[in-house]
Amino acid sequence: MKRKLVATGFGAIVALVVTAGPALAQESEISEAAAVQAVLDNLWLVIAGALVFLMQAGFAFVEAGLTRAKNIANIMAKNLADMAIGAVAFFVIGYSLAFGGGNDWWGGLGDFFLADSADPSVLNAGGGLTDNVTPAASFFFQVVFAATAVTIASGAMAERTKFTTYLIFSAVMTAIIYPIVVHWTWGGGLIAQMEIGDAKYSDFAGSTIVHLTGGVAAFMGAFFLGPRIGKYDDDGKPRAIPGHNIGYAVIGVFILWFGWFGFNAGSELAADSLVPFLALNTLLAAAAGVLGASLVIWIKSGVPDVAMAGNGALAGLVSITAPVGAVEPWAALVIGFTGGLIVVFAVLGFDRIRIDDPVGAIAVHGVCGIWGTLSIGLFARYDDAFLGREEAGLFYGGGLDQLAMQAVMVVIVVAWVGATTAILFATMKATIGLRVSAEEEMDGLDVREHGGPGYNHEMLHI
Amino acid sequence: MKRKLVATGFGAIVALVVTAGPALAQESEISEAAAVQAVLDNLWLVIAGALVFLMQAGFAFVEAGLTRAKNIANIMAKNLADMAIGAVAFFVIGYSLAFGGGNDWWGGLGDFFLADSADPSVLNAGGGLTDNVTPAASFFFQVVFAATAVTIASGAMAERTKFTTYLIFSAVMTAIIYPIVVHWTWGGGLIAQMEIGDAKYSDFAGSTIVHLTGGVAAFMGAFFLGPRIGKYDDDGKPRAIPGHNIGYAVIGVFILWFGWFGFNAGSELAADSLVPFLALNTLLAAAAGVLGASLVIWIKSGVPDVAMAGNGALAGLVSITAPVGAVEPWAALVIGFTGGLIVVFAVLGFDRIRIDDPVGAIAVHGVCGIWGTLSIGLFARYDDAFLGREEAGLFYGGGLDQLAMQAVMVVIVVAWVGATTAILFATMKATIGLRVSAEEEMDGLDVREHGGPGYNHEMLHI
Amino acid sequence: MKRKLVATGFGAIVALVVTAGPALAQESEISEAAAVQAVLDNLWLVIAGALVFLMQAGFAFVEAGLTRAKNIANIMAKNLADMAIGAVAFFVIGYSLAFGGGNDWWGGLGDFFLADSADPSVLNAGGGLTDNVTPAASFFFQVVFAATAVTIASGAMAERTKFTTYLIFSAVMTAIIYPIVVHWTWGGGLIAQMEIGDAKYSDFAGSTIVHLTGGVAAFMGAFFLGPRIGKYDDDGKPRAIPGHNIGYAVIGVFILWFGWFGFNAGSELAADSLVPFLALNTLLAAAAGVLGASLVIWIKSGVPDVAMAGNGALAGLVSITAPVGAVEPWAALVIGFTGGLIVVFAVLGFDRIRIDDPVGAIAVHGVCGIWGTLSIGLFARYDDAFLGREEAGLFYGGGLDQLAMQAVMVVIVVAWVGATTAILFATMKATIGLRVSAEEEMDGLDVREHGGPGYNHEMLHI
Repeated sequence: MKRKLVATGFGAIVALVVTAGPALAQESEISEAAAVQAVLDNLWLVIAGALVFLMQAGFAFVEAGLTRAKNIANIMAKNLADMAIGAVAFFVIGYSLAFGGGNDWWGGLGDFFLADSADPSVLNAGGGLTDNVTPAASFFFQVVFAATAVTIASGAMAERTKFTTYLIFSAVMTAIIYPIVVHWTWGGGLIAQMEIGDAKYSDFAGSTIVHLTGGVAAFMGAFFLGPRIGKYDDDGKPRAIPGHNIGYAVIGVFILWFGWFGFNAGSELAADSLVPFLALNTLLAAAAGVLGASLVIWIKSGVPDVAMAGNGALAGLVSITAPVGAVEPWAALVIGFTGGLIVVFAVLGFDRIRIDDPVGAIAVHGVCGIWGTLSIGLFARYDDAFLGREEAGLFYGGGLDQLAMQAVMVVIVVAWVGATTAILFATMKATIGLRVSAEEEMDGLDVREHGGPGYNHEMLHI
Repeated sequence: MKRKLVATGFGAIVALVVTAGPALAQESEISEAAAVQAVLDNLWLVIAGALVFLMQAGFAFVEAGLTRAKNIANIMAKNLADMAIGAVAFFVIGYSLAFGGGNDWWGGLGDFFLADSADPSVLNAGGGLTDNVTPAASFFFQVVFAATAVTIASGAMAERTKFTTYLIFSAVMTAIIYPIVVHWTWGGGLIAQMEIGDAKYSDFAGSTIVHLTGGVAAFMGAFFLGPRIGKYDDDGKPRAIPGHNIGYAVIGVFILWFGWFGFNAGSELAADSLVPFLALNTLLAAAAGVLGASLVIWIKSGVPDVAMAGNGALAGLVSITAPVGAVEPWAALVIGFTGGLIVVFAVLGFDRIRIDDPVGAIAVHGVCGIWGTLSIGLFARYDDAFLGREEAGLFYGGGLDQLAMQAVMVVIVVAWVGATTAILFATMKATIGLRVSAEEEMDGLDVREHGGPGYNHEMLHI
Repeated sequence: MKRKLVATGFGAIVALVVTAGPALAQESEISEAAAVQAVLDNLWLVIAGALVFLMQAGFAFVEAGLTRAKNIANIMAKNLADMAIGAVAFFVIGYSLAFGGGNDWWGGLGDFFLADSADPSVLNAGGGLTDNVTPAASFFFQVVFAATAVTIASGAMAERTKFTTYLIFSAVMTAIIYPIVVHWTWGGGLIAQMEIGDAKYSDFAGSTIVHLTGGVAAFMGAFFLGPRIGKYDDDGKPRAIPGHNIGYAVIGVFILWFGWFGFNAGSELAADSLVPFLALNTLLAAAAGVLGASLVIWIKSGVPDVAMAGNGALAGLVSITAPVGAVEPWAALVIGFTGGLIVVFAVLGFDRIRIDDPVGAIAVHGVCGIWGTLSIGLFARYDDAFLGREEAGLFYGGGLDQLAMQAVMVVIVVAWVGATTAILFATMKATIGLRVSAEEEMDGLDVREHGGPGYNHEMLHI
């Protein structure tokens, strides 16, 4: 709209308030300042959503770095597909299941294709997920979360999954499996309607809703696929298959960490004074996660493994995602550090039980997702004054009630995602197949599935 | 200014409103809330401009990934130079041609070196391109677009262009050729003054103004340079010269996609409730572009080519850049998907007519730029209520009139950029030369033009 | 807090203003619009801080690109550790030294662990470094600067430093050495209390406070470590040890440049109409730095060295960091260009005196940090009307007084950081040792210190 205001001339600031904020103001008779605040809320969701979008580049870097060079094109293709398929599937079906059709316990129905809000003048009025933001902003922020949820599984299934199989999985996840979890929680359904004592479920930005969902799908994928050729020796002992580029992995961690400020602080769904607090807790937990994971792996293996340090950052981030708005900074440190400790043992544990997860996604997103969700029962402040939240309807029942509520939430999500992805993978295994042939796996998926190697470094000296 | 407010002590919030917003408020007697809105508009332009700036890293990654390792230093040097030369040339000349000196049809003159607004107190008052934003914000947002326009051509001219030749091209583009296009459109000149029936030109964020401009320059560059050695076999059939790092290419696509949220949603030149809608359409079109391009290449070649999927995302983004504020989300999907279909045929088509474009820039930015511009004639909503735009002076005449107007715009830009870049390249070809020697091309430009290879991987095992 | 507002229903915009802005409004009886402005100030600090955070990825890319492939894991580990250790050390001690306990000349004491503001309701009220922003926002923005200060030194110490030694250095820098510098300046201590004539120290975003601090530490590190094996031939002449990936280096420069918009424009510590001006000056100085450095190196060496062009951008950025809010755009161009000229001579000069700095950090951050700080004495506008700053308590004494004041500032920071880091490195050298063994250095730090190579490219053809 560059032309508009050039032409408009003097007085455009006033005109702007007429077109921008007060468009909303007129409808709901709010003050001019409240209209500016509403614009600010919407803008923050767009910026935060864009940061979450960039996490796709972070995931791609991490997954590529921790796997072998012969599969990089396939990994890039999957991450690109997660965003492309995810956006379309969430637009067509997922968003309506998650947020359409009222608070039915099981799922929503309605607003397919954003149909109820298809008129852009509606898309730009208030009345999105919250009354302060527009449907367009709500969708934009939610769709990047959907893409994140499915991309998590990509890493655990790397280096052996058929591309078409993966695409189907990606579509089903973003169209149905993840949206149902969202409906049950942020959408006001099943889990949101439960109470234990005074405690209601609490998962600010999605330790369970996004990360555990992705982590359980990752587990099922790795389980049904089986380990990569060469991962276990003749005695069944795990062997390290080192990634091909630790630089990619760490740069990816930095990009994810950066995007996570949008993930967590954007989940406030408003621009208010809590936003810096959320960013602060996010930073501290990730930093502590690096220290926790480094400490354990250094003691256990004798060397400060860099990939594990990076996974420690992600572990801290996943862990703080649920409690980020409910705990004090010192507790964010403790939660992140503990997440860092946990992730090392979890990675080694899955290795031992023959769940071959090339990037440690199940440990990072699944196990630390559970830890983060439960940590609310241990560290959340229960007093009414905390962050002035009692007015906002947020309530922590406290103690065992809250811990139990969080555990129930975990169990329900694990059961739902575990069952549906198990059915999906089992069905595909019995029909189109999950896995590339052994020859393809040895040659690399790039050559066989994508027409050529992802690297052509021999050209260096042509 | 960290010191200021530390010293100021209590009451600084009020002071801030005095120094920040109300600086403007005092002059134009607007409300306190409108002053905050003006600050917000300026801030959004800075954030969006920074996102567009980051697209340089995206372009560098894409271009490097799709070309050979022996030329990576040269590619990086060109991208860095585009930003460096572009910023200075646009500051010295370009911005004044684009926006200085009123609405003369041919170009502006005035405000060289931001001279008319050189006093920083003016640079920070209202009265930039729109009255709500400052000249500093206006310049910042526009200059990164100029750098983008020229960088587009870099890819098509890769692996064989003399570095000094490229630098001259870069300077002329950002000082003169691109600014004139901007003056004719966003600056209120030639094209902006035309009407066909009720229809006026419409190009929200620059499918034609930025991308087609870059695409035409890319075509002329590739045409005058001729194909790379080895691109065509003895029978004249094109051979694939695969890029050296598909990971770079896809990461670059993600960064460009991320930056495009600033490109499109920032082009609103204000923080208002349309911003999330613009981001939403941008996301959907890119996602659909991936699907469209993947579908075609998969059918035609039998494999899901990853580079083409990435180009599909860019095709969707270029296509939606003009109509992003004029079409509904379903139409954004259709426009992006169609862009994805088109780009594959265009890439293969230019290959066939011996226009050697290593990264597909002409297809992505040129052809899809045209498609996006024309798509307004097919998909724009004409009713007055759409987004409340009739008040803002935006008008779509509808139907064939609009389609014709868009076509005229395309023709004028193609003619101007085609003629000027043809003259420029022909002149340089006749004098300093366009192309490195055959030996340099074989050895790689890095060793011969930049003093050494861009990679030194043999050091791995030292 | 996704649940809150979903549940809240209609009227949430008003509720928001109650919970968000007016939380502050109620306490200080400011207007509703001022409350929105306060929210905006806080939000901008979070966004700008996140951009500064991303600079870690930029530093990692630059440092990795300019060094050898055999050390990439170590480089990534150090950069990750700088953020992790830096965040925790600054939380526990550093922030309190910098900003706690009033304006004592030597340092602060108090608010350890953000103790005075540990109650999140305080963390989210006003009263951070400035009264318009919250303690949480203040800490978040400052902590990423601390991590930047220490990461600067990482590059100069690359390829030969023991990992544990580096970790101790990183902790001491972020816990004590850097925070004291901050206290003396932005914290209101020693340097802030000095005057020469009418002139007070001026360092908007930290040419001296951050970059020179890092640069001096880098110098001392390189000095005590000594040069890498093979850096000097038998006659003592320096030999080039080219980096392994110029692509990484330039991408890193783009990411740093992007983050610098947050670094400089965020240092306004408020969202006001100066922000675009700061971004503009930052862009121009960096662009000019590329041109300056390219010009010199092209003339001296006969080729446009790409790494040096990249360092030119960083030189321009470091140079403009202090004067960014005090000079006109043309002066930003001159300051950046001069920084670009200087950095080439400085890099070559340190090479000659046997200070082996693999990435040129001492030249970029140290020498250009000094240049940028002094440039205020030459280019700052002294008239009261400039940017309306006289009301804000900002004052430039002008001429020689100001130049002298800036020089005193440089001397004090060089003395403090030089002395403390010299003691630290000397102590560590005498005890645990600074340097890995010659064998480790030859094999690369990755294999010996981190358990394996950072690259496994031979897997390409498995």
